[in-house]
Amino acid sequence: MTTTTPLPYSVQWNDTHITLLNQQALPSKIEFLELFTVKDVYDSILTLKVRGAPAIGLTAAFGVALGAIQENTTDLWQFKHNVTKHVTTLASSRPTAVNLFWALKRMENTLQAANSIASAKSALVAEAKKLFSEDVEMCRKIGEYGLSLFNEGDSILTHCNAGGIATARYGTALAPFHLAKERSFPIKVYACETRPVLQGARLTAWELMQAGVDVTLISDNMAAHTIHHKKIEAIIVGADRIAANGDTANKIGTLGLAILAKHYDIPFYVAAPSSTFDLSLESGISIPIEERNGDEITSIQGIRIAPENVKTFNPAFDVTPHSLITSIITENGIISPDYRSNIPLFVK
Amino acid sequence: MTTTTPLPYSVQWNDTHITLLNQQALPSKIEFLELFTVKDVYDSILTLKVRGAPAIGLTAAFGVALGAIQENTTDLWQFKHNVTKHVTTLASSRPTAVNLFWALKRMENTLQAANSIASAKSALVAEAKKLFSEDVEMCRKIGEYGLSLFNEGDSILTHCNAGGIATARYGTALAPFHLAKERSFPIKVYACETRPVLQGARLTAWELMQAGVDVTLISDNMAAHTIHHKKIEAIIVGADRIAANGDTANKIGTLGLAILAKHYDIPFYVAAPSSTFDLSLESGISIPIEERNGDEITSIQGIRIAPENVKTFNPAFDVTPHSLITSIITENGIISPDYRSNIPLFVK
Repeated sequence: MTTTTPLPYSVQWNDTHITLLNQQALPSKIEFLELFTVKDVYDSILTLKVRGAPAIGLTAAFGVALGAIQENTTDLWQFKHNVTKHVTTLASSRPTAVNLFWALKRMENTLQAANSIASAKSALVAEAKKLFSEDVEMCRKIGEYGLSLFNEGDSILTHCNAGGIATARYGTALAPFHLAKERSFPIKVYACETRPVLQGARLTAWELMQAGVDVTLISDNMAAHTIHHKKIEAIIVGADRIAANGDTANKIGTLGLAILAKHYDIPFYVAAPSSTFDLSLESGISIPIEERNGDEITSIQGIRIAPENVKTFNPAFDVTPHSLITSIITENGIISPDYRSNIPLFVK
Repeated sequence: MTTTTPLPYSVQWNDTHITLLNQQALPSKIEFLELFTVKDVYDSILTLKVRGAPAIGLTAAFGVALGAIQENTTDLWQFKHNVTKHVTTLASSRPTAVNLFWALKRMENTLQAANSIASAKSALVAEAKKLFSEDVEMCRKIGEYGLSLFNEGDSILTHCNAGGIATARYGTALAPFHLAKERSFPIKVYACETRPVLQGARLTAWELMQAGVDVTLISDNMAAHTIHHKKIEAIIVGADRIAANGDTANKIGTLGLAILAKHYDIPFYVAAPSSTFDLSLESGISIPIEERNGDEITSIQGIRIAPENVKTFNPAFDVTPHSLITSIITENGIISPDYRSNIPLFVK
C-alpha cells in the first residue's frame, strides 16, 4: 500500500504566483509565503526563507517563469532583454549556490531558444515545472537506492537536513525514510541537532515528524553513545560537494560521525545527486571551508550562551575523506570504492 | 615568575558566613551569594548555585561548620544531636553526590571525636578548612602531573567543565591550564560547548578567560575538524566515575572525543582525583547512565529550538572504554595501562 506523505512542498507553482514554505519560521510555525513578483522571489531567497541548493534553484526558476508571464511588451527582443534581467537579478540572490546558476542557465537557454513571446512564456513555465519534476524523480531514485541498503526495523542516524524541504520533494539523505514511510517499511531515525544552526532540531525533526517517520532528536555529542546503545545500523548524510576521489564536503559534524561509523564498524553513506560531484577537484583538500561568524556559536536565537568576547572557531563544513565513506548514493546508482575509478561510471 | 590567577573561588569560608560563586548566573554575571545559615547552604546546593562534586562537598562541609558555630546549647549531647541534624539535612541536598557524603562523613567523624562544644566548634571549622586545602593541593598535583604531559605551544581540547569552579581551586582537567598560566607556559585551549547544558560555553570558556588562558570555543560537532585543522596535540577531560579496569564515565560527548583521539592518533587523558575510582565496579558496563528530561535538548534557556512533542534521547553521561584512554592523571601520579594492574598502585 502506498500513501502520500503530508509533508508540504518547499516550493509550488500556482500559475499566477509561487507558494513557498517559510523555512525560517519552522518548526514553531508552518507558514507559506505567496510570491507574486520577481522581487518577492529574490527577497525570499536572499533572506533565507528557502534553503537547500535544489529548492533555491527551483524557486529561482519559477521566479523567472513568473517574471516572464508578467511581461507586457510585444517586442521579442525587449521581452528577452527583460527576462534576462530577471535571471541576472535572481542569480545575485545567493552568489555561492551552484544549483541556482545551473537552474537559471536552463531557464536562460529556454528563453533564448524561443521564437515568439507566447511560446517563450509557455516554454519557460514548462521548463521550470520540468526542473521541479526532474528533481522529484532524482530524489525518489536516491531514496530507492538508499532504501535498498536498509532492513526493516533498522535504526539509522542522520545529520543536518538533506530533506524534502531542501529539494522539490523527498530530499537526498532523508529520501529513503520518506519512501519507507510511504511503503509502511519500519525505520527508526535518530537526528543530530546540528549545532550551531540546528538544522537537525529545527528542520529534520520537524520534516520527519510531519511525514509520520519515527524520529528521535539527540545533541550532536550524543552520537557515539547512541550508536553503541541504540544499535544504530548505519549513518546517512547529504553532501555539499564531492571531489573526484570521493572526499565529501558536508555540514560541520559529518566528519566526526564518519569516524564514529568506522570505529563501530557500521556503514557510512553519502546521498547526493550527481550534480554534487565536482570532478575538477582531485581531492577534498582543495575544497574551501567557509568560516562563519562566531555569533552562531555564542548565541542561540538571540540568547547569549557564552561569555562576551570569547574567541570562537566556526567552520560551516568539514571534509570527510573517501576512506571513511562506505558508498555514495546517487540517482544513477550506488557508487562503491574505488571512487576515482567508479565515480565516472555514474557521473557524466 | 608566578602570578596568581584572578579566577574567583567557588566557595570561601568567611568566619561568620560562606561566600559562594553563583555558577548559575555565569557567564552573564559574576555574582556571589552570602550564606548565613544551614538552610541557605542547603538551598544553594539544591538549586544548583554550586556545581562540581568537590565544590558541593566543600560547601556542605562549610555548611556543617556554620551550623555548629551558631549552636547556643551548652549540652554536648544536644549539640552533637543538632549538628548531626545539619549533616543529615545537607546530605539530602543532592542525593547522588558521592563527594558530598564523603565530605560530610569527615565532618561527622570530627564532631563525634570532640569532647567539648568549644573544641567541636573549632575542630569542625578546622576540618572544613582542611578539606578545602586538601582539595586545592590535590588539584594542584593533578595539574602538575597533567602539565608534565604537555609542551609549550600545544593546542589542547577539553570538554564540559572539570574546572577550578567545580573544585576548591584549579580543577582537574583544567588544572594544567591554570598552572601553565601561572608559569607563563603558553598553551592554547579549545573548549567544546558541551550540549545540552553548555558547561563548556558557559563555564569553561568563562573560567579560562577569567584566568587569562587562551581559550577558543567550538560546537561539539566541530571537534573532528578542529583536531585535524588546528593541530590539537591532546584531549583532556575530567571523570565522574572510573571502574577498576579504567572504563570512565564522564559528561556525554566524552566517548566521541576519545574515538576521535584514537582516529587522529593523539593522546586522550582523563584527569581525576583518586576518590573518583570505584574499584567495586569491574568495568564501565555496571555504571548506570542517567537519562535526563528532553527539555534540555529541545529548549535552550527557555527558547524552544525543536518541534513540540519531538521524541528525544538525553543521556547525561557516557562511558569511555579503557582501551581509548592513554593515561589517567591523579594526584598520586599518572596511571598508564594496564589499568587493572596499575590503578591499585595509585588508588587505595
